[in-house]
Amino acid sequence: MLCQLRGTVDDSKLPGIPQGPMPFNLSWRASIRYYSTSLQGSKLFPVKELTTHDILLQSRFIYQPAAGLVHWLPLGLRTYRKLQAVIRKRMDQAGGLEMELSSLSSKNLWEKTKRWDNNELFKFKDSKYRDYCLVPTCEEEITNLIGDLCSSYKDLPLLTYQIARKYRDELRPRGGLLRGREFLMKDAYSFDLTKEDALRSFDNVNEAYRKIFEDLKLPVTVANADSGSIGGDLSLEYHLIHKSGEDVLFECNSCQTVSNVEKCQSLPEKGFKGAKEAECQYFINKDRNTLIIMYYPKGRTLTPRYIMDEIPDIDFSIDEEMALAMFKNESEESSSFLVKEIIRVIDPRVTSNTNMPDLKVLYHRNSMFTFTDIPIVEAVAGERCYECEKGTLSEHTAIEVGHTFYLDKKYSSPLDCTVVNEKNESTIVYMGCYGIGVSRLIAAIAQTGRDEVGLTWPQIIAPYQITLLSNKTSNEENLDVVAELLSSFDLQVDGRDGKFSMGHKLKQSKVAGIPLQIIVGKHFPLIEIEVRSPIQHSQELKDLYKRKTWDWEIQESPQTAGCSEKHLVHLTGLAQVVDLLLKCL
Amino acid sequence: MLCQLRGTVDDSKLPGIPQGPMPFNLSWRASIRYYSTSLQGSKLFPVKELTTHDILLQSRFIYQPAAGLVHWLPLGLRTYRKLQAVIRKRMDQAGGLEMELSSLSSKNLWEKTKRWDNNELFKFKDSKYRDYCLVPTCEEEITNLIGDLCSSYKDLPLLTYQIARKYRDELRPRGGLLRGREFLMKDAYSFDLTKEDALRSFDNVNEAYRKIFEDLKLPVTVANADSGSIGGDLSLEYHLIHKSGEDVLFECNSCQTVSNVEKCQSLPEKGFKGAKEAECQYFINKDRNTLIIMYYPKGRTLTPRYIMDEIPDIDFSIDEEMALAMFKNESEESSSFLVKEIIRVIDPRVTSNTNMPDLKVLYHRNSMFTFTDIPIVEAVAGERCYECEKGTLSEHTAIEVGHTFYLDKKYSSPLDCTVVNEKNESTIVYMGCYGIGVSRLIAAIAQTGRDEVGLTWPQIIAPYQITLLSNKTSNEENLDVVAELLSSFDLQVDGRDGKFSMGHKLKQSKVAGIPLQIIVGKHFPLIEIEVRSPIQHSQELKDLYKRKTWDWEIQESPQTAGCSEKHLVHLTGLAQVVDLLLKCL
Repeated sequence: MLCQLRGTVDDSKLPGIPQGPMPFNLSWRASIRYYSTSLQGSKLFPVKELTTHDILLQSRFIYQPAAGLVHWLPLGLRTYRKLQAVIRKRMDQAGGLEMELSSLSSKNLWEKTKRWDNNELFKFKDSKYRDYCLVPTCEEEITNLIGDLCSSYKDLPLLTYQIARKYRDELRPRGGLLRGREFLMKDAYSFDLTKEDALRSFDNVNEAYRKIFEDLKLPVTVANADSGSIGGDLSLEYHLIHKSGEDVLFECNSCQTVSNVEKCQSLPEKGFKGAKEAECQYFINKDRNTLIIMYYPKGRTLTPRYIMDEIPDIDFSIDEEMALAMFKNESEESSSFLVKEIIRVIDPRVTSNTNMPDLKVLYHRNSMFTFTDIPIVEAVAGERCYECEKGTLSEHTAIEVGHTFYLDKKYSSPLDCTVVNEKNESTIVYMGCYGIGVSRLIAAIAQTGRDEVGLTWPQIIAPYQITLLSNKTSNEENLDVVAELLSSFDLQVDGRDGKFSMGHKLKQSKVAGIPLQIIVGKHFPLIEIEVRSPIQHSQELKDLYKRKTWDWEIQESPQTAGCSEKHLVHLTGLAQVVDLLLKCL
Repeated sequence: MLCQLRGTVDDSKLPGIPQGPMPFNLSWRASIRYYSTSLQGSKLFPVKELTTHDILLQSRFIYQPAAGLVHWLPLGLRTYRKLQAVIRKRMDQAGGLEMELSSLSSKNLWEKTKRWDNNELFKFKDSKYRDYCLVPTCEEEITNLIGDLCSSYKDLPLLTYQIARKYRDELRPRGGLLRGREFLMKDAYSFDLTKEDALRSFDNVNEAYRKIFEDLKLPVTVANADSGSIGGDLSLEYHLIHKSGEDVLFECNSCQTVSNVEKCQSLPEKGFKGAKEAECQYFINKDRNTLIIMYYPKGRTLTPRYIMDEIPDIDFSIDEEMALAMFKNESEESSSFLVKEIIRVIDPRVTSNTNMPDLKVLYHRNSMFTFTDIPIVEAVAGERCYECEKGTLSEHTAIEVGHTFYLDKKYSSPLDCTVVNEKNESTIVYMGCYGIGVSRLIAAIAQTGRDEVGLTWPQIIAPYQITLLSNKTSNEENLDVVAELLSSFDLQVDGRDGKFSMGHKLKQSKVAGIPLQIIVGKHFPLIEIEVRSPIQHSQELKDLYKRKTWDWEIQESPQTAGCSEKHLVHLTGLAQVVDLLLKCL
């Protein structure tokens, strides 16, 4: 297929091919209409039974050389680049300065933030026995860099970001892209002089995220989240709701608050009389002089951190048996100066109707305190929202695709990232960090958008907007005319000869999720358009159709797999109709 | 500087921001004119004494977190992306299919090609004790992938490429970018059914390389090269001649052949009577029945591999002492059936006038053969070219920036990369591989282009084409007008307020190598343009200037550092003049 392969279709549309001032000779664009089928493969396969990951593999978006690793093939790379461009645009608008940090990071920085002892870090030594890791995120490196390069409040606020590979020695890599060992992440970091500024930066990036998902026409759910190991005390997650998701969210039908299960507190449903049986767990505080006993309904999952606001000094590293031993020990040995306290935390589902377990320690009534109004178990669907105390919680499974954190001084303090303020005093900066899992997002979009015929993509990130096909009765010149007419779109021409039937070529294009299949055939100069996904006609399209300036028929709900509607349009109006259809997608 | 930072200047010009069919709201482009100086820094520094690497650091193109590692800062990233786009365009035109392979590769493939035992590989184990390396090149992975995905001659020819990070545990990392431990490389791989096709692919990529360097307006030197550890028997290197280079090239003033010192054979200059003294080295062949003695001028560097065409079975793993012992041993023990031979290879610089060292073995005249016409020492400048036997060789030091290899079956054979041919027979494919060191090329361009004032870039990869500045006497509105007029260029506006003088801002722009400094000042609507590097006026520019359609003065050779000429142009013609000037750069 030499003659057909030398050159590619109009790749000037690909992000990465610069436009504008660069001196481009465009003659190569129009002259080449064929694309390489070599790496797109030519076999049809039974899509219906396949996992989304397998469709991505079989339709050759990606190749998987080993568990959790991915090679991006030409088709997948186009989607991957276009998604990067969508993100880049909104991060730039938000004032983000793009950079690219090294994938290697030295041990010393990670020791300062106490993150070196992490089993999921890929670690290795160089030939001089120095230790490195492959970066899972870049808080250490960027904080160190900004601390080095910026010295004054005049350099702030600062928002930096990159779209770069990250690494995690994931024990159970899943689906290649969803949970990979090497993955593409957009990570951003904000640096501010004051907490208020930092919170404004946090809002600014969350607003950019909103626009990114709007550009992608994705129904994203924003959830309150627990900050986990990244740290900080304000954190939002971005999710695509889907039955295959691994995250659990709760949504209130009254105040609309959505929270990750790890962050969601709930009250018992109205009229609940109390659990039948309670169980309890014992904790001790850091000073070893207070025993904390948490009572909760038997069988529910205890979430002791919900009590942290009231009792911030619980030592979670001490287990129950040890806690009891320490408390008893302390009680015996210590002098009477020491007040020995017991704090009981009783989940609101535990009431006077509930059978309580026996206490394992002796106590004086005077030294016992009780909290009864703080929920300390994971929510379940149907319970009442703790935020508004009115609505009912419903449960969703979801795929997490983004996460934003307000970090406060968690990294800037140990890494000594300071600037001088207006009074020339050295002050530690306030940070935020913000991630979007780019490769994961592609997998999530593929997963939530696929149907029985194959993939469907938001047109802004489809590998091509159009596949142009011709059947045997068509001649080369007609195909040329149409390709030229549509040259402003991101188009591939399936120029494979008679060995593949029209049906075969159409199916391949639909499996790959190309939004429009355009067929040059025997009705020329009437051209057939198949629309891959269901669309809502815009007013503009409806108006134009009514005017009937040229031949144009719409066949709604045709009985064709992977085709929501067909158009038969005269050449004269083709480009305009295609443009309007793409805008509806 | 919050209000000035929210947004960046017209980044739609950056490769990576898609154009065309994507539904962009362009309102943000015109509205933002200020760029963040935070990460470009604000200090001036003494450029003249600095190494190029230090200029790149100080002007904040890059940041160096550790030896051989680089973080790309916003300014550097723009140049890096633009260079990628230049390369991408030409590789696409050559029919290349872009992909992105994982940076991690599993040990098993590298064992098949016997490249695992390489000290420069970064190696590590995952939590399941499987071995990986960080890829230095991707022959193993891509050959395995193509072998898996392609099965028929119809899938060929195939040219794939990527622009991705590579890794080498370099013992002596140099200059950060020139010889880094993590670096950006464009690597391409061709797959063909026959040797002729493969050589055509080799030519095709070399032609693409020619265009890439032409686009960059770089005077690149192409040299015949030794294939080294990559293998294969046809190989070209791309060099920038510069005194700081680590490679040595020889060029013939008659046939113009350029070769790397490792590949360059030479004849003695005309009239040379012979070296005064010779020395010799002993080798043995793999069958241990032939002793090879190489005679060459004392003090010259022996290159025994030049004799490989004539004596292909020399065992270079055996040293001289061992070789002699083996030969003597063989002579004594073996039966008279074995012919014991001695081959003398005498460099053409060793003649009857030369004092020869004594032979360390006994021999029969009948069993001795002699080659006298094969040069076996490294060339030196002034000697005669071995290719044409006429011209004189001159020596250059150079920086290598690209390398192309015809690989034959070196990788496809051990990795079993086969397709069926037209007769349905399984056949091993022929390969080529092709590299451009992208980060190294940036360092080399910086190195060869720098002057006493700072960096200069080919305009196609300058971080910005223009810095637009205003002095205190100018008003905001005038700056807006000019920024709008020039909005089709890749422009940054230095909107820093009065704290920095015009001279300070101009210097910073020139250190960074921005091709044009455009000043909106008191002469408004006359605008001043400073041209950073010496240029040749094109005929078009000359013609336009003669026509004097609007006010336009050119001051050639102004006494201003880092400025080859100044223009004073009326607003009316500004965009046109800027366009023509950039085309000359």
